[in-house]
Amino acid sequence: MNRIRRYIRMITIFTKRGGYVRANYLKRIGYFKKQGEHCYFQPWNFGTDPYLISFGNNVHVASNVTFINHDITSLMFRYTDNNHTYKERRGEIIIGDNVFIGTNTTILYDVTIGNNVIIGAGSLVCKDIPSNVIVAGNPCRVIGDYNTYKEKITGKNLT
Amino acid sequence: MNRIRRYIRMITIFTKRGGYVRANYLKRIGYFKKQGEHCYFQPWNFGTDPYLISFGNNVHVASNVTFINHDITSLMFRYTDNNHTYKERRGEIIIGDNVFIGTNTTILYDVTIGNNVIIGAGSLVCKDIPSNVIVAGNPCRVIGDYNTYKEKITGKNLT
Amino acid sequence: MNRIRRYIRMITIFTKRGGYVRANYLKRIGYFKKQGEHCYFQPWNFGTDPYLISFGNNVHVASNVTFINHDITSLMFRYTDNNHTYKERRGEIIIGDNVFIGTNTTILYDVTIGNNVIIGAGSLVCKDIPSNVIVAGNPCRVIGDYNTYKEKITGKNLT
Repeated sequence: MNRIRRYIRMITIFTKRGGYVRANYLKRIGYFKKQGEHCYFQPWNFGTDPYLISFGNNVHVASNVTFINHDITSLMFRYTDNNHTYKERRGEIIIGDNVFIGTNTTILYDVTIGNNVIIGAGSLVCKDIPSNVIVAGNPCRVIGDYNTYKEKITGKNLT
Repeated sequence: MNRIRRYIRMITIFTKRGGYVRANYLKRIGYFKKQGEHCYFQPWNFGTDPYLISFGNNVHVASNVTFINHDITSLMFRYTDNNHTYKERRGEIIIGDNVFIGTNTTILYDVTIGNNVIIGAGSLVCKDIPSNVIVAGNPCRVIGDYNTYKEKITGKNLT
Repeated sequence: MNRIRRYIRMITIFTKRGGYVRANYLKRIGYFKKQGEHCYFQPWNFGTDPYLISFGNNVHVASNVTFINHDITSLMFRYTDNNHTYKERRGEIIIGDNVFIGTNTTILYDVTIGNNVIIGAGSLVCKDIPSNVIVAGNPCRVIGDYNTYKEKITGKNLT
């Protein structure tokens, strides 16, 4: 029953076309633990535990990003060992303000991402990311500075 | 015709919801070369050559894992060279007992994975993996010890 | 409207089954900036900017390869800074002759791939790739030589 409800929810999210429209819908229904202003979400599948994901303001998420908020290795350990319990592990993903997450990125739980962060396409995020950096790779590493990149792509001064 | 049959099969696998239900169904129809007890499969697409994949007991596979049992570079080589033949390469993927394969992992052919192995999310597995390890990354490398992790997440002693 | 047209196009591409059939269809409708002879395309989604992708002759693309020809970080920067303009960045992906691109690979824009290149499954291509090499990994690195591999898988001499 819960699974069917989850699928119906996912299909509804899928029908909200456009990253800002989708994010506004998800904010209105309170889909995540926390969601700031001006978010843009291309994915429609945020995994089984969206209540463990927090987004700050101005977070842009490109398509096919995977959020993993739990770990089912416990199911495997239980079968091999009847003498102990193994708890299903769950953890939060906390994302700051002004964060861009590139296509095909995978983010694991117990991870905090700072403010002003760009995560390159195809990254694997398994550790905290500090503020004001660009990261990429699997596992992801700091490869640049957020503000340097921002200045580089400035079109012109409007003032 | 074979292609249509393959699609119908994939849709049928898709309708088997829940990792244990799906794995039991695949075991019953003999989908793989070999499949042990107590497996859990979230993927419904195991590629074109499931008859080249062997699973031991207690193998848990998370969503969106890709199994690649063949290589079509031969199609490309044939076009550039009329003087030789190029065979389509195929190879087995052999997985031991008590193995967990994380989301978004890609596994290439001619690979043997030992017993008691955890493969982290987003990994690329292109070489054999020994027993009793945790691997992750692209290409994947040993990053930890299976038993250490198992002890770490033990809830309590039941005896 | 453009979005709907794009979805209809993608569904049409999806219905063209078989890599050569699909590539021939895309060549006939002039989907890409340039497309040579004897291409083989398993993906049906080439992103939002296929007019920025050039394929040489004899290019084989395996399933689930992502082509990224633009970058929307500008949407994020604009929100944080009213004093400057930020242009949406777009760039070309140029692929030479006799290129094989493995499953689950992601290719970023402003990238030129040479002739006689094999890109391993799961790679992240963010820089130019020279001719006559095999690359793999995230980020991808040269791991071998095209001609050495070609000779290795030669079945037999036909002359």
